[in-house]
Amino acid sequence: MSAKNNKIKKPAGLVIVYTGEGKGKTTAAIGLAIRAAGWRKKIAVIQFIKGYKEIGEWKFLESIKQIDIYQTHDSKIASIGLPNNQHKSSCLKSLKMLKTLINKDEHDVLILDEINNAISYDLVEAGEIIKILNDRPVRQTVILTGRNAPEEILEIADLVTEMKNIKHPYDIGIQAKRGIDY
Amino acid sequence: MSAKNNKIKKPAGLVIVYTGEGKGKTTAAIGLAIRAAGWRKKIAVIQFIKGYKEIGEWKFLESIKQIDIYQTHDSKIASIGLPNNQHKSSCLKSLKMLKTLINKDEHDVLILDEINNAISYDLVEAGEIIKILNDRPVRQTVILTGRNAPEEILEIADLVTEMKNIKHPYDIGIQAKRGIDY
Repeated sequence: MSAKNNKIKKPAGLVIVYTGEGKGKTTAAIGLAIRAAGWRKKIAVIQFIKGYKEIGEWKFLESIKQIDIYQTHDSKIASIGLPNNQHKSSCLKSLKMLKTLINKDEHDVLILDEINNAISYDLVEAGEIIKILNDRPVRQTVILTGRNAPEEILEIADLVTEMKNIKHPYDIGIQAKRGIDY
Repeated sequence: MSAKNNKIKKPAGLVIVYTGEGKGKTTAAIGLAIRAAGWRKKIAVIQFIKGYKEIGEWKFLESIKQIDIYQTHDSKIASIGLPNNQHKSSCLKSLKMLKTLINKDEHDVLILDEINNAISYDLVEAGEIIKILNDRPVRQTVILTGRNAPEEILEIADLVTEMKNIKHPYDIGIQAKRGIDY
């Protein structure tokens, strides 16, 4: 029996996608981690392409026992600029980590932060992600964040929210703020 | 000099709106609280119309020293059903609390959860909220969540994200889940 059939029989864990150009995707995933932690669930966050720990979510989540947060990228440069071999290599590490975490089966919620960007930059393959997610324990909820979520991911998702930019402070010259944007 | 002029001189705190029909509004506000907490900022959350503490965010945030979370509604019924006198009275209490918190000037981030709904139900007036927010300390960032954010609020906002529902599990009969939806 495939994991997909398991899921239909017992739809415990969801696949949730936060995508779009607007703010609030990673932020909502962090909020969901907190909500799950409030119910004493165990959460893992893998930040794809991000390699910078001077961000509020890292500082806070790292101190929470129920939440494991990982980065595999070395650079301080996040997803800025064209993807290079370093991005590719860190994405492969992130994928390997995802497989390891799924095999360990210790988490109720897995957050794959910026993975949609990683897919759209051809750093990881949507098909491979889907295969991994289909074989996960049925109770696990997975959140995929980042712009440009590809059609294949939207198809397997149970919940998709598009964060749509209506008004943005950068447009009027206000810069990214500590504790708000990162 | 008005608070608005202060803001233009020193645009420290933003007005952020998360609105729309899609999931992720309150969730993103919680995430922002966590991000701010990661930078050792102090955060207050006032949940408008909500009067139910068996929710993951309450359970978790209540235990965080830097975050103060308040509900003024007594009922277990959140924003379900038509607003009644009890909703009206709890909204007035929430407004009073907002004024008190602004006067105290102890917080860097104020989250007014579901306030957009409260406005659209005519439980509080947009004009009054705007007046209160204009007189806040310039460093304070305010987040307003909830569907149907009115035009006046969008006008004074620096950042507006619309959470757009692309795909929703309720549509296929999957019910709200503990640790995910609440």
